[in-house]
Amino acid sequence: MRRSDRGSPMHDIIVSPKCVASSYGFATLEDTTDVPRTARSATSCTASTPPGTIRNAARRVIVMRHGERLDDLFPGWIEKSCLSGVYRAYDLNMPLVLPQLDRPMAHFDADTVLTEMGTVLAQMVGRGLLINKTLPDVVYTSPALRCVQTASFALKAAGYDDQVKIRVEPALFENTTLYPEGQPKFATPAQLAAADFNVDANYKPIMTADKLWSRPESIEEYGDRLQKTLLQLAENIETTTNPYGPIIMIVGHASTVDLAIGAFREQIRRSSAADLLNIGIFYPFCATAVFDRSITQQWKYCENALPPITYRNFTSKINSRFAFRTSVK
Amino acid sequence: MRRSDRGSPMHDIIVSPKCVASSYGFATLEDTTDVPRTARSATSCTASTPPGTIRNAARRVIVMRHGERLDDLFPGWIEKSCLSGVYRAYDLNMPLVLPQLDRPMAHFDADTVLTEMGTVLAQMVGRGLLINKTLPDVVYTSPALRCVQTASFALKAAGYDDQVKIRVEPALFENTTLYPEGQPKFATPAQLAAADFNVDANYKPIMTADKLWSRPESIEEYGDRLQKTLLQLAENIETTTNPYGPIIMIVGHASTVDLAIGAFREQIRRSSAADLLNIGIFYPFCATAVFDRSITQQWKYCENALPPITYRNFTSKINSRFAFRTSVK
Repeated sequence: MRRSDRGSPMHDIIVSPKCVASSYGFATLEDTTDVPRTARSATSCTASTPPGTIRNAARRVIVMRHGERLDDLFPGWIEKSCLSGVYRAYDLNMPLVLPQLDRPMAHFDADTVLTEMGTVLAQMVGRGLLINKTLPDVVYTSPALRCVQTASFALKAAGYDDQVKIRVEPALFENTTLYPEGQPKFATPAQLAAADFNVDANYKPIMTADKLWSRPESIEEYGDRLQKTLLQLAENIETTTNPYGPIIMIVGHASTVDLAIGAFREQIRRSSAADLLNIGIFYPFCATAVFDRSITQQWKYCENALPPITYRNFTSKINSRFAFRTSVK
Repeated sequence: MRRSDRGSPMHDIIVSPKCVASSYGFATLEDTTDVPRTARSATSCTASTPPGTIRNAARRVIVMRHGERLDDLFPGWIEKSCLSGVYRAYDLNMPLVLPQLDRPMAHFDADTVLTEMGTVLAQMVGRGLLINKTLPDVVYTSPALRCVQTASFALKAAGYDDQVKIRVEPALFENTTLYPEGQPKFATPAQLAAADFNVDANYKPIMTADKLWSRPESIEEYGDRLQKTLLQLAENIETTTNPYGPIIMIVGHASTVDLAIGAFREQIRRSSAADLLNIGIFYPFCATAVFDRSITQQWKYCENALPPITYRNFTSKINSRFAFRTSVK
């Protein structure tokens, strides 16, 4: 039967149907770690830990920027997509449906969603995590919906989203001075769970969003808050079956990645207001940075832990002025 | 169970899990056609046509460029990806496995494959075809593998690839002067079928690839060959259940789209050698152009038949020089 009816079921869009047999030529934690497997297991097991599991602070931290955001590409998208009264995409890179959050459309204004390409980028990172054997034991995200989506799509692409509940941590939110109109209406963990995000409803955040907005924060204070949060999350004791110790993943903003690179090193490097002004230029969507804790408890940047994603172009639109020229040059 | 083993099964990468309820705000053939449904059906049915079907020349022609090509982004990819003796991707935008064609790696050199993003672009176009109710009855492609892949992924994303066999037409191949080393080793329809492409093994092409390479062709001759081929394919009598008449899709190169825009109009507009020199700039990957035949048998460009695809960025790599700066500015 011809399935051309508007609204009829669509097949899943699959990136690569045969992705079982191959792998990337990149370093895994096994390749890069400097601690022998048995020694590590022995030192970190305790009497109360089930056999085969380890309880320890993070051995590896993966920090990631969210995927491509819709409002960046499509200014005024809420008005333009809702002319008929309900949301309708007007570009194939817009999601066909928005996350089924029980909230007004206006709440998407300061809390935007991923584009389709942003979703695919997150999925590619998830595939990289799986194939390079560096799946996280624990995932934290900024409360921004685009970050929760990025974490969720990465875990789903790795076939791993039922294994790890996402911890929504308001202390990871970006610089509040970027939001002169005040606190965005973030979806609550309960709303996110109802929309099929596997969030941890029992997670007790370091800071609530209300606390974050309780007083103005300078850019320097933002940097301090973020770097302190990152280092604190890396010291939480977690359980893993990975003999090298727990892997945590933190999904945030461009500034999160920059501040992480400044935090997970011997001597802290801060980010200035000037640095953070156009930070998105330096850390593209779904940029990742991976840090490993050495035997001497030093953090080291691990350049090849994940493959990069290289792609091109920004529109499929033809150049009409050229195409509709009337004569040969 | 934790699935972190190298080579363990991966879940399908899905762009949007809930894409049933919504649609794009774009014109369908019903909206744009100027022929009433019943009149068209009456004039084009013949005694030998089964009830509910029509036999006629194309009513709509969709011309499309292939998706993002691997060799463009990753020069020397064959050597670099095969250092271990077998193909291994070294970027998350490279396919995890190549199409399972029974041919030497060297044949991919002049006959490259799509990137993962190229695949996703093709799938997005397929989704647009489905939702805008303009699925093709007949699909032709250039013999270049990237074009066959693009057609196949678009049809698959529309859940329609088992309905339409792809006709590989060497006369649609691009300018042979772009291949100074001679004819690429195209996969045969039999090889493509064995690699799970739904190609029409019985299709008799206008021209074989050997014929195409039997003598040198100037750029002007290329333009003539292509425009003649496009117009000829549009006159083939096809069967459809679409009351407006058959829809054909042609997947080719950037120059194919430009030459189509020059061909499907009242008076032909040719493309000069200068026009074709950097034609890819004007027609991005997966650019589409749609033409409808009017009641007076004139071809008209139909601007809004398919939604555009707008996206951004070209790498997920961080800017290391910035990231690893040692002090605050």
